Amino acid sequence: MKYTEMNKQQLKDELNALKEKYDSFLNMHLKLDMSRGKPGSDQLDISNDLLTMVTPGNTKTENGVECRNYGGIDGIPEMKKIFAQLFDCPADNIIIGENSSLHMMFDIIAQAMSHGLDGETPWVLQDKVKFLCPSPGYDRHFGVTEYFGIENILVPMTPTGPDMDMVEELVKDPCVKGIWCVPKYSNPDGITYSDETVRRFAALKPAANDFRIMWDNAYAVHDLYEDQKDNLLPLYPECVKNGTEKMVLMFMSTSKITHPGSGVCALCASSHNIDLMKYRISFQTIGPDKVNQLRHVRFLQSFSHIEEIMKQHAAILRPKFKCVLDTFEKELSPCGAGHWTNPNGGYFISYYAPDGCAKRIVELCKNAGLVTTPAGSAYPYGNDPHDSHIRVAPTYPSLHELQTAVELFTVCARIAYIEKIMA
Amino acid sequence: MKYTEMNKQQLKDELNALKEKYDSFLNMHLKLDMSRGKPGSDQLDISNDLLTMVTPGNTKTENGVECRNYGGIDGIPEMKKIFAQLFDCPADNIIIGENSSLHMMFDIIAQAMSHGLDGETPWVLQDKVKFLCPSPGYDRHFGVTEYFGIENILVPMTPTGPDMDMVEELVKDPCVKGIWCVPKYSNPDGITYSDETVRRFAALKPAANDFRIMWDNAYAVHDLYEDQKDNLLPLYPECVKNGTEKMVLMFMSTSKITHPGSGVCALCASSHNIDLMKYRISFQTIGPDKVNQLRHVRFLQSFSHIEEIMKQHAAILRPKFKCVLDTFEKELSPCGAGHWTNPNGGYFISYYAPDGCAKRIVELCKNAGLVTTPAGSAYPYGNDPHDSHIRVAPTYPSLHELQTAVELFTVCARIAYIEKIMA
Repeated sequence: MKYTEMNKQQLKDELNALKEKYDSFLNMHLKLDMSRGKPGSDQLDISNDLLTMVTPGNTKTENGVECRNYGGIDGIPEMKKIFAQLFDCPADNIIIGENSSLHMMFDIIAQAMSHGLDGETPWVLQDKVKFLCPSPGYDRHFGVTEYFGIENILVPMTPTGPDMDMVEELVKDPCVKGIWCVPKYSNPDGITYSDETVRRFAALKPAANDFRIMWDNAYAVHDLYEDQKDNLLPLYPECVKNGTEKMVLMFMSTSKITHPGSGVCALCASSHNIDLMKYRISFQTIGPDKVNQLRHVRFLQSFSHIEEIMKQHAAILRPKFKCVLDTFEKELSPCGAGHWTNPNGGYFISYYAPDGCAKRIVELCKNAGLVTTPAGSAYPYGNDPHDSHIRVAPTYPSLHELQTAVELFTVCARIAYIEKIMA
Repeated sequence: MKYTEMNKQQLKDELNALKEKYDSFLNMHLKLDMSRGKPGSDQLDISNDLLTMVTPGNTKTENGVECRNYGGIDGIPEMKKIFAQLFDCPADNIIIGENSSLHMMFDIIAQAMSHGLDGETPWVLQDKVKFLCPSPGYDRHFGVTEYFGIENILVPMTPTGPDMDMVEELVKDPCVKGIWCVPKYSNPDGITYSDETVRRFAALKPAANDFRIMWDNAYAVHDLYEDQKDNLLPLYPECVKNGTEKMVLMFMSTSKITHPGSGVCALCASSHNIDLMKYRISFQTIGPDKVNQLRHVRFLQSFSHIEEIMKQHAAILRPKFKCVLDTFEKELSPCGAGHWTNPNGGYFISYYAPDGCAKRIVELCKNAGLVTTPAGSAYPYGNDPHDSHIRVAPTYPSLHELQTAVELFTVCARIAYIEKIMA
């Protein structure tokens, strides 16, 4: 029975029953974490061969470059070749970074702040700089622009990607300098932008000459199901058709393919943007860790081998997603407590509580020993206008822990919902 | 016989003889490189065990943190402990970075530019920002501040470090925001700052509240001789005595201890500065490569084991330094063609040609297939006021190649000198 159809006494009884359940969780003194999109340790084991791929006597690239020594700023050729397959772009359009694509994004914004892009005034010297944040989105993206004092503007997500009517309207403001995107299996909704959305991105005509689309394809190969794969229309060729390729900066990393702490990332962009970043890097660093790139080249081998690796990840992740979805269905559907996403890939499920309940759910979870992402964190300045969204990250706990965590979560969600109705 | 004591005919004859020698080098079609401070491949082999120090089942820190996964932004505790020994500072004052200490320095300057330090106006919004560059110095240091449009001010080096009278005078200008230092076995002179110099640094009272000493102790453990080691008075304790510890940012890396391309670096500073950089890093990256830190911890073990490793480096480097110094002595002393340094450690020998000869020597070397660091590159904006200094980097070529390279170099030096006298 839906809670909205219950009378006061029924709700009271239900709340008491739920509180009893909640107390039993309290007595378990749990310490569970569903807060971040971290792979579980069995996923890390998939790539253990990575650790021993470069051994003494075995440290040179195909063209004879010694990876242990100084030299080279944009990555070894064979690493670029693999990312070129992933991006479906020429290797010349690629720069290999260290283990964090976020770092590359941060540095590009830092470059725009202190030096400006395309000969325009450095952003720090401009009166006002704004960035579009499709929300719910990735909190660490929004954090970068917030850190630099850029105004983050909320753009609602739709089932086909960001609200493009709104994006097209907002970019008429010359203060709007860019937009954060996770175009495939978006963090946290698991939405893949439709072909039309991608085409409208490629056709954008922003007022700002130094506008950039930060296209973080973090989940490019992160399908959950063999027979239900989302397809993302490649943005770059569409931009070439529109002559807008200068506008796009595309990112990827091996963080959730090999080992998140010690992976390799890449930027793919027009030669104009590549030259710009190479220039910065030539002052910034002595070059990336080529040994780690060589490890990755030898372990990953090719795009098709990466797909095999990702199947192993999916086999581990599917039961975890199923656990969350089944429990939500069983515990939350009958009473009508919110709705949630059922993505074909990526690392998250978005739970949308009835308005005004998310903070209370997170609080109840926390008090019982379950850490979730803070309510609102997927919105600019942590401010979810509906206080509804909670990002559920099912990947890190074991299946057993996850089952407990999700059951607790649903109890908290139902308590918060009844409290709201009765308030 | 000194060239200055020769008559015109003698000089002509000498020049012809040298040009014949030069031609014989031309006929060898050489491809030699003395340009950068790169270890040779036999030095890289010293640390080959590094490559296999982290293997499957063996990926956690002492306190159980999984290094393969996300997490942690400032380094694993045991890596901090080793750098704490090297810096002689508490581990809490240390942040571990990736493979490039230059990157950490760049990021601190970037931070000062966009956000300011200590609540002062961001440097990019200040009318004028200047940085002191003890010269000859490290070209990549000067490059960082040049990249950000900061005015690099030349401060002459003396045998005891930078000209401190001049430094003390210049810091009275509130536009002067910092100074680049390689305090031990300086790049390129191999000078170690005297105790008095260190104490005067610690006692500096700059007009700018946001002044920073960039103390790059890149050659902290890079002695060449067992019985002739330079001793650098630790700066930090002196600063504590003066209450000036906020002013100092100290850097080190394993670049020339293990593998330059895939090492680990560290920043050591007051808790004020550490907090400042941790705040930045928390937005900038998902964290450093902890697996590579774990490799280094297990390979390096302790300060005393690092000293053993450095003895192996020194054994390889001593004959190379001897080769350069002996050849310079034999070929350049009799004719009085310049003078040079004879350092107790580090990676370089500075050759000071007679004024106005350096560019010509580099050109002659280059035309015969020997790449050296460009003349003037150890000075701000590549401008050596005397056109005299050339940085000689003897570490990368084999001993055999080096002998040829140095012989060629001396021929070029003598030709340029005679041309200058006869001009």
